[in-house]
Amino acid sequence: MTRITRKKFLFDAFKYTTGAATGIAGLNFLSGHKAIARAKTKVWPWPYTKLDPEEARILAHDSFYTFGCCYAGFTGIIGLLQKEVGEPFTAIPLEMMSYGGGGVKGWGTLCGALNGTAAAISLVRDWKASTPVINELMGWYTEALLPSDQSNKYGEDGKFPADKGIKTLPQNTSGSPLCHVSVTGWCSAAGYTIGSTEQEERCSRVAGDTAAKAVELLNAQQDGKLQTEYVMPASTSECLICHGPEKEVANVDHKMTCIQCHDKPHEADERNEIIR
Amino acid sequence: MTRITRKKFLFDAFKYTTGAATGIAGLNFLSGHKAIARAKTKVWPWPYTKLDPEEARILAHDSFYTFGCCYAGFTGIIGLLQKEVGEPFTAIPLEMMSYGGGGVKGWGTLCGALNGTAAAISLVRDWKASTPVINELMGWYTEALLPSDQSNKYGEDGKFPADKGIKTLPQNTSGSPLCHVSVTGWCSAAGYTIGSTEQEERCSRVAGDTAAKAVELLNAQQDGKLQTEYVMPASTSECLICHGPEKEVANVDHKMTCIQCHDKPHEADERNEIIR
Repeated sequence: MTRITRKKFLFDAFKYTTGAATGIAGLNFLSGHKAIARAKTKVWPWPYTKLDPEEARILAHDSFYTFGCCYAGFTGIIGLLQKEVGEPFTAIPLEMMSYGGGGVKGWGTLCGALNGTAAAISLVRDWKASTPVINELMGWYTEALLPSDQSNKYGEDGKFPADKGIKTLPQNTSGSPLCHVSVTGWCSAAGYTIGSTEQEERCSRVAGDTAAKAVELLNAQQDGKLQTEYVMPASTSECLICHGPEKEVANVDHKMTCIQCHDKPHEADERNEIIR
Repeated sequence: MTRITRKKFLFDAFKYTTGAATGIAGLNFLSGHKAIARAKTKVWPWPYTKLDPEEARILAHDSFYTFGCCYAGFTGIIGLLQKEVGEPFTAIPLEMMSYGGGGVKGWGTLCGALNGTAAAISLVRDWKASTPVINELMGWYTEALLPSDQSNKYGEDGKFPADKGIKTLPQNTSGSPLCHVSVTGWCSAAGYTIGSTEQEERCSRVAGDTAAKAVELLNAQQDGKLQTEYVMPASTSECLICHGPEKEVANVDHKMTCIQCHDKPHEADERNEIIR
């Protein structure tokens, strides 16, 4: 087994960074500004330029039909930045995020639209700045009537380039950022089967809505005007009075709605007993 | 509102790709092979080179203490490829994946270790090739005793560079790829509180184990020897007899274990009724 120490890894990382910078400087002498732009790929976060939420909505919607919801959410933002800004965004293959479709290869975990847009946000914002944006996006997703009126309007008017001929779709609130809860809840509310053209179009519109919302939040933050509205449901904060970190039970640290799975909360330990 | 058609977007994407290729060709004349390597950033998937799973385990474990589990899982593979291969991998800021910690900014959704490693797999494998690797990784995660014996051995021997002085930790099987289920289940099984040093070290070891497992699977696939072992639990496949796509109910398409949330399955519709 080859071991590397943390110190060595950090040293190596520094070496490669400075090496790359030296290389870039050499190239710069020969080829002007292009190489300077390339040097920016070493600095995180990458520079965000305000985008049009409607362009993000449409691009994400249409991209769903290429590689699913996670690719769609990521492409709605980073694909637009590739078009509007170019480098360094063109260095990232958008397809990297295609794994997240259907809550990661159909496992039904995190909604891919959220996963892809969160990755995009995290590319253009540092840890501290991305936290309120992603938290607000997640909270909004759980409470919004989706697909949005705006997406339904585009459907009604046939204005999505990847139009499936579907007009207004029924809306519901998922109460959850999880793919399975979101999609199954919508199927039950809307009366469509899973895998139907309508369900796929619902998810493509949700991907568009999520990318558009993320762009609205990023634009507001860029202007120093980000306002966060999401508040955890009272039923969840009540559970955390005992279960939250540093509380009496101290075994839960999350923001999902407890009662969607734990309808009889104190059976939870029995279930864990079964799983163990 | 500025509208772009799908056709226009695809045309633009083509234009930028060929434009970049022309630029690269010009640079190549001046600066040799470095520019050729850079041209590879346009082609997905990026070329995988077999890695040492133990290096991935240690790097992912230690990286947890910088930006959490998702960054750790991604860094355990892509950070190693940055070190071993360099370009094009150095173009991606590893910090992009830091959003996934604690199931995305503490929401408790998808385990970040899985999210980060799945993104890494999806960068070096196309859609078709990544599917069995990620599916096997997800299934393995739900059934494995974690943290692994190997991680515990490193803890026992003080061999993690980011050593916290913690020896062998209790193990459990999560039954789920979700952060909340995994972490709370472990806290209940192990008798440690959430947010404790032990729970954090447990998650850092799980991130290491997940990256190491992913590298083992990628290496096997590279050699044409990938064997998948995961089979969905019988309790879940029984539910899907009616609920799965194209079945009688047709409202579920996922691979998570149903009975962890739906202990009395046919109350599910009542719960959806409440959420709507």
